[in-house]
Amino acid sequence: MLEEIPDLKSMSLEELNALCDELRNKIVDTVMKNGGHLSSNLGMVELTVALHYVFDFPKDKVIYDVGHQCYTHKLLSGRADKFDTLRKFGGISGFPKREESVYDCYNTGHAGTSVSAALGIAKARDIKGEDFNVIAVIGDGSFNNGLVYEAFNSVSEINSNILIIINDNHMSISPTVGSMHEYLEKLSAESEQRAKKKRHETIFERFGLSYDGVYDGNNLECMIAKLTEIKEKLHDRSIILHVLTKKGKGYLYCEENPQETHGITAGSGRATEYSEVLGRTLSAMAESDKRIVAVTAAMTPSLGLSDFFEKYPERSIDVGICESHAAVVCAGLAVEGMKPYYAVYSTFLQRAFDQVIVDICSQNVPVTLCIDRAGISGSDGETHQGEFDLSFLSFIPNLTIAVPKDGDEFRQMLLASAHFGAPLAIRYPKDCIHKFGGAPFVFGEWEKLRDGDDFAIIACGERMISLALDVSRRMAEEGIDCCVVNARFVKPMDTVMLDSLQHRHIVTLEDNALIGGFGSLIDSYYSESGKIIKNFAYPDEFIPHGSVRELISKYGISVEGVCSYIKNNADR
Amino acid sequence: MLEEIPDLKSMSLEELNALCDELRNKIVDTVMKNGGHLSSNLGMVELTVALHYVFDFPKDKVIYDVGHQCYTHKLLSGRADKFDTLRKFGGISGFPKREESVYDCYNTGHAGTSVSAALGIAKARDIKGEDFNVIAVIGDGSFNNGLVYEAFNSVSEINSNILIIINDNHMSISPTVGSMHEYLEKLSAESEQRAKKKRHETIFERFGLSYDGVYDGNNLECMIAKLTEIKEKLHDRSIILHVLTKKGKGYLYCEENPQETHGITAGSGRATEYSEVLGRTLSAMAESDKRIVAVTAAMTPSLGLSDFFEKYPERSIDVGICESHAAVVCAGLAVEGMKPYYAVYSTFLQRAFDQVIVDICSQNVPVTLCIDRAGISGSDGETHQGEFDLSFLSFIPNLTIAVPKDGDEFRQMLLASAHFGAPLAIRYPKDCIHKFGGAPFVFGEWEKLRDGDDFAIIACGERMISLALDVSRRMAEEGIDCCVVNARFVKPMDTVMLDSLQHRHIVTLEDNALIGGFGSLIDSYYSESGKIIKNFAYPDEFIPHGSVRELISKYGISVEGVCSYIKNNADR
Repeated sequence: MLEEIPDLKSMSLEELNALCDELRNKIVDTVMKNGGHLSSNLGMVELTVALHYVFDFPKDKVIYDVGHQCYTHKLLSGRADKFDTLRKFGGISGFPKREESVYDCYNTGHAGTSVSAALGIAKARDIKGEDFNVIAVIGDGSFNNGLVYEAFNSVSEINSNILIIINDNHMSISPTVGSMHEYLEKLSAESEQRAKKKRHETIFERFGLSYDGVYDGNNLECMIAKLTEIKEKLHDRSIILHVLTKKGKGYLYCEENPQETHGITAGSGRATEYSEVLGRTLSAMAESDKRIVAVTAAMTPSLGLSDFFEKYPERSIDVGICESHAAVVCAGLAVEGMKPYYAVYSTFLQRAFDQVIVDICSQNVPVTLCIDRAGISGSDGETHQGEFDLSFLSFIPNLTIAVPKDGDEFRQMLLASAHFGAPLAIRYPKDCIHKFGGAPFVFGEWEKLRDGDDFAIIACGERMISLALDVSRRMAEEGIDCCVVNARFVKPMDTVMLDSLQHRHIVTLEDNALIGGFGSLIDSYYSESGKIIKNFAYPDEFIPHGSVRELISKYGISVEGVCSYIKNNADR
Repeated sequence: MLEEIPDLKSMSLEELNALCDELRNKIVDTVMKNGGHLSSNLGMVELTVALHYVFDFPKDKVIYDVGHQCYTHKLLSGRADKFDTLRKFGGISGFPKREESVYDCYNTGHAGTSVSAALGIAKARDIKGEDFNVIAVIGDGSFNNGLVYEAFNSVSEINSNILIIINDNHMSISPTVGSMHEYLEKLSAESEQRAKKKRHETIFERFGLSYDGVYDGNNLECMIAKLTEIKEKLHDRSIILHVLTKKGKGYLYCEENPQETHGITAGSGRATEYSEVLGRTLSAMAESDKRIVAVTAAMTPSLGLSDFFEKYPERSIDVGICESHAAVVCAGLAVEGMKPYYAVYSTFLQRAFDQVIVDICSQNVPVTLCIDRAGISGSDGETHQGEFDLSFLSFIPNLTIAVPKDGDEFRQMLLASAHFGAPLAIRYPKDCIHKFGGAPFVFGEWEKLRDGDDFAIIACGERMISLALDVSRRMAEEGIDCCVVNARFVKPMDTVMLDSLQHRHIVTLEDNALIGGFGSLIDSYYSESGKIIKNFAYPDEFIPHGSVRELISKYGISVEGVCSYIKNNADR
């Protein structure tokens, strides 16, 4: 049925239910091959079909919060024939993308933006005097995020009607934590009584929203009836519809393992991961060091901290998808002498940017940021790449930034961090492949991995150290000697080492944007020297989805690219 | 009484009330001389005296949200003798500062952090097995901020008892907007009935907090009694105490003009301000261009937009202190064809960092950020300086960054922005003093203000253009010819101009941090050229309070500093 955009409105309930089965099979088949978000998408099939049955897209607008539940929406809006390219380089994205389809009205990727965006879109509609419906679909995990509260708080100020659907599956990536979650549960439990008698005002009505719930979001007939009824009411009010869905619905393994199947990685065989090193090392350290506290914002397992949380529950805090709050809690812990480790994906740390500056660094308190998925992270695309963290951290006073060259050095850095009395950021990618060996770790100093008089290659992080060593070997075969430096601290830089490099030619390699990145620090350091410096880093554009290897090569950061530059400039 | 730390606990109510009068006089006298936050501090006198009477500081900890209400606290904790240095360069800060006193346990400056910080501190206390009270004092304006909701949401997860005092004066800087504010008002109105009969559960109880209110925060006797009672209960629960205070209390002019007297600038005679140019220009543009919408986060008057809001209420949105949300609303407006202008102070834009990247720039929608108080902003100190925005914006793809050289150029940029179809940031300081004249504005191009073959000075923004011209005149007297370039776009840079500069020596001037700032872009652009480049910008440290002039000179960005460099390097 999915070859073209199906005409849902002409279909019977039976046909629609058959369509749901077909969609579900297509999603499972594709995700098993390409990787992607499985259980969140499986839970949304019926609700999405009902939305497309009742509303008129693309005239009406729907915004999927975070966006990792939009596969059915994509399949129903003319992208079924390209669905086998999902998350592949050059293929369709796993998230809503305006540039991909007029059915995607707003790009998402980070949690909690859907209600604010819906209010903006609805306000534009009202200013222009147009007539269409605006719907935000938001999971209970995102619901903890402060942005949602800020949006609720301005519903009456902005005064443009929208429909908010809470897709409540009791999970974000980890099980949902927090009081708002408990409150949603309470509403679900009370639902039956509420139908019968006069009920308490809900928290949502205090914000000027009509609340309607709780309904079974996996029951297509029920969803169609409810959305049809609500659609009529949207002309004179904003409504919040609370539905329950089952994460992983229709695929038993997912239903039973929603956390493990939230994200599926394509292909089998996991490399060791930096997150495992973090979890193992921090657990060992916490045994004797009672000051150590681990803080996360809803990603505990993927950050490698499940065991820590189990072993030290009283020193483990998962605040839900509240990255800003987590940073301030860490600062509060630190001013009272604790040693907090805040583990967070690079891209989500952007949410705590102001708090890292004001609460952590301007107070100069010893919070350690463990920044996972730094650099290119791959198939999730623009909103999940970690290519900006060196740029947005390097100018913050008082912050030390470390970039380990391998898992062993990461472990050494963590051990050393226990005695480090100031803000520290350690950034690392997902996979931890190499063991470069080398001199024992000395805090604050770079490391020369190879001597060479012709070019100095200063590289940052495992992927780039590996590249630098490959390049230096290849160049040696051609008679060009390259020195290779492991810049394991982006800040402070090792100025003794920098001053000792007598090379006219410097090459920098980093897994970060060019502007404001490591290379630009080197450019500025040498700006009065007259040296010739070439920076290899990502250009000034958002990096799409694809494999890590494909994307890094796309930007010329490869053995061929670097060797070619060196050969062409060797005689300059 | 204030010569040393007064022993409040031994004082009678009459003596305490007399102390309140003395404190109030001291605050009024000092702020009238030094500038500062007047009405917010006057409203807090009795509540702060009561806190110091009932609790045991510094063993107990109090965190003042935003921090612009801490003057009484400072006067009661040993800083009365230095109070006449308030906000002066080298004097005491207008905000809580740990480095200033053990009575200041947590630095604040940006809204909404107090509850998260209190939870962190209380959690540390419980992990260590210590016994003290932790109090967050937060205004109703901050209360709109999403951070507070995130903190509430984790009260039960973190499970460490704190006292939260809502200091409700119905104002942030502008009158408080938003539903939470209306809800607080409703609670106040219901207060009397609630005392008599069984009341509804408040929103706070849904988060696991005991709610107690509303009481008169300017009634010392009442506050002492209430806090004494609550102190006993903090051993087994977290409590939220809701008090009403009068902003500007005890000083009639302030009581009647709380908005105008929120911040007092020392000295009389205002220069023209960029904010006035913004308001006037945008109002004129909006007359014919119905797509224009102005968006603020609680600072409408200081951003120059009061008239716009009055003239175009249907195209004006003040979301309260919710900078992240404001950015997403703008993106939503823009995807539907509106032309939003988001006016915000540089330092507070840090709160919308992720949304500027993900919602505005990765979607490449035409939102214009009007970034006020950029560069050094003066007497509010570390948490209010705007010296980072070029660093945190310049690496964001799709974003154009403009820095006008004077008010006329700012106006031209605003006019040109109407036809600019992508994200745009315009950054400017408060005062607008010069009129440099010059060629008609051409979008995307720099401007050569003066020719000269010896050094090229590339300068960014009014303060630096003025400095560059002064330097070039002084150097000309000594026979050194300096070319002066107005880099009115930090991004994209004018590469045609850059390539045309044949000078061996380049000097960059900017009102921003060195790292990641404008100069570092020049360093990187010329990194393969062998040119000798000197960057004048702020060093890698937080900039304290003081006058703009004092602070800029402190960092050597002065006629003397730049001339000295040029003379010393002219023969190199």
